Amino acid sequence: MTSQHSRYFVYSRRVAYHETDAMGVLHHSNHVRYFEEARVEWMRAKNLIGNHQPYGPYIFAVTHQDAQYFKPAFFDEPLEVWVQGKMNKARVMFQYAVYSLKSKEMVAQGTTTLVPIRQDFKPCKLPHEMIEAFHREAWDLEWPPQA
Amino acid sequence: MTSQHSRYFVYSRRVAYHETDAMGVLHHSNHVRYFEEARVEWMRAKNLIGNHQPYGPYIFAVTHQDAQYFKPAFFDEPLEVWVQGKMNKARVMFQYAVYSLKSKEMVAQGTTTLVPIRQDFKPCKLPHEMIEAFHREAWDLEWPPQA
Amino acid sequence: MTSQHSRYFVYSRRVAYHETDAMGVLHHSNHVRYFEEARVEWMRAKNLIGNHQPYGPYIFAVTHQDAQYFKPAFFDEPLEVWVQGKMNKARVMFQYAVYSLKSKEMVAQGTTTLVPIRQDFKPCKLPHEMIEAFHREAWDLEWPPQA
Amino acid sequence: MTSQHSRYFVYSRRVAYHETDAMGVLHHSNHVRYFEEARVEWMRAKNLIGNHQPYGPYIFAVTHQDAQYFKPAFFDEPLEVWVQGKMNKARVMFQYAVYSLKSKEMVAQGTTTLVPIRQDFKPCKLPHEMIEAFHREAWDLEWPPQA
Repeated sequence: MTSQHSRYFVYSRRVAYHETDAMGVLHHSNHVRYFEEARVEWMRAKNLIGNHQPYGPYIFAVTHQDAQYFKPAFFDEPLEVWVQGKMNKARVMFQYAVYSLKSKEMVAQGTTTLVPIRQDFKPCKLPHEMIEAFHREAWDLEWPPQA
Repeated sequence: MTSQHSRYFVYSRRVAYHETDAMGVLHHSNHVRYFEEARVEWMRAKNLIGNHQPYGPYIFAVTHQDAQYFKPAFFDEPLEVWVQGKMNKARVMFQYAVYSLKSKEMVAQGTTTLVPIRQDFKPCKLPHEMIEAFHREAWDLEWPPQA
Repeated sequence: MTSQHSRYFVYSRRVAYHETDAMGVLHHSNHVRYFEEARVEWMRAKNLIGNHQPYGPYIFAVTHQDAQYFKPAFFDEPLEVWVQGKMNKARVMFQYAVYSLKSKEMVAQGTTTLVPIRQDFKPCKLPHEMIEAFHREAWDLEWPPQA
Repeated sequence: MTSQHSRYFVYSRRVAYHETDAMGVLHHSNHVRYFEEARVEWMRAKNLIGNHQPYGPYIFAVTHQDAQYFKPAFFDEPLEVWVQGKMNKARVMFQYAVYSLKSKEMVAQGTTTLVPIRQDFKPCKLPHEMIEAFHREAWDLEWPPQA
């Protein structure tokens, strides 16, 4: 269960101290932030970040966020966030599975639905290259993947 | 659409500047934090907070978090988080609807499922008084309520 | 040591669970956020918030932030942030002292220096009414005040 | 001004979207969090992290935090945090200078003073190896360094 064996994009991250809570573990709201960081790195890896603000005109407004939590993750624990993304009509969907490199277990999984908007908050159509990039991606119906 | 007219517990909050993001609005991860704050105030209002750490032995581990986002909320916007809670076998469920007192619109809604645990992270049974308090609560199947 | 006896503006706040860290206490970066929240409420109390974005054209860029930490503050601990503000030439200064209503001890103190700017990040002159409001304030050279 | 030319330990980081505020820039409280992340990576690089909780018995309580802010840092801006650390009697001090790889300018600088404590919050003496590691470090009186 390492990034080398993953057929998905993988974002790696250790749990920061300021992200822990009084139980000593990554606070559940911070997984949602990791998902966002993973999306951004996914876009960079696919050469799409240039379309995103402040480089380009687009931004993605989250309309739905779902997360399931299976195991606690402690300070400094090395995590991998596996990511897959797709277009769903005018919306963009991302799915994530968070694994601990320490326990070799799945820590959490999540799904985000986003709408592309511009600075005026109005939904807009993505440029052709972004739509194509999303369509090139494999989308695994069985999620989370077996690590 | 004010707390006086709500048959639900209402937690009131303005959007802090440090909770906004580059679009000028409450970041979607912070709604999840508002839900937590609302649960805590719900427990205080029901006289249950004394059972929660650090006052008592219990804590609630989030196992599922779902949120839908309808409208942006800007810096200093006054919000109301309406809350209902119930027991679902060994689990606890909370539902929230976030309204803006400025726009009179629903900003977001959410659902959290939690498992009571102790310091050792092991699921545990809640004391009788907590279970009864949850069972006394009305649980509205039509959610979010019509403001 | 309660807000009734304070000659200063007092912002009251309990420690949220998501603001604690693995030691079970308010993370030191969150005191800096409390200071900001206290400044905003100070401006509201002085009828100055209407000049601040998004209501008015001004915003305050922090140029210096200093904080001393004396005692840990635990989840749900009720805190009071005492505030004083003044103009210092073109800059604005705020000082804070954070007290625990539980332990009756001073938890932290801090100082922030800010520069008024507009949307283009350029320093600007504050309107007469804001300058006068700052000048009307007492500024206690002995800080933090004896609780 | 790149990490190759630095005689200091360098922690690299891009600004996350959730760390920006309504001015579109890294919120000033998040620099304080970057300082903490930089300290942790400094300890890892010096082979000292094994002494820190949860690996070892020690933790560092922040007693003083000072930060100066020179320039805004925008979403996705690549930053370098240069770090130096030393023992000062029973305390530990870190200094940081934050540079933008995009603008080639210094964004911020900061100083943290910490006290080693154990789980009971009582100050304690650090083990010999940690004290020696701090003493091996160069400490530049001219800070921030000329990039």
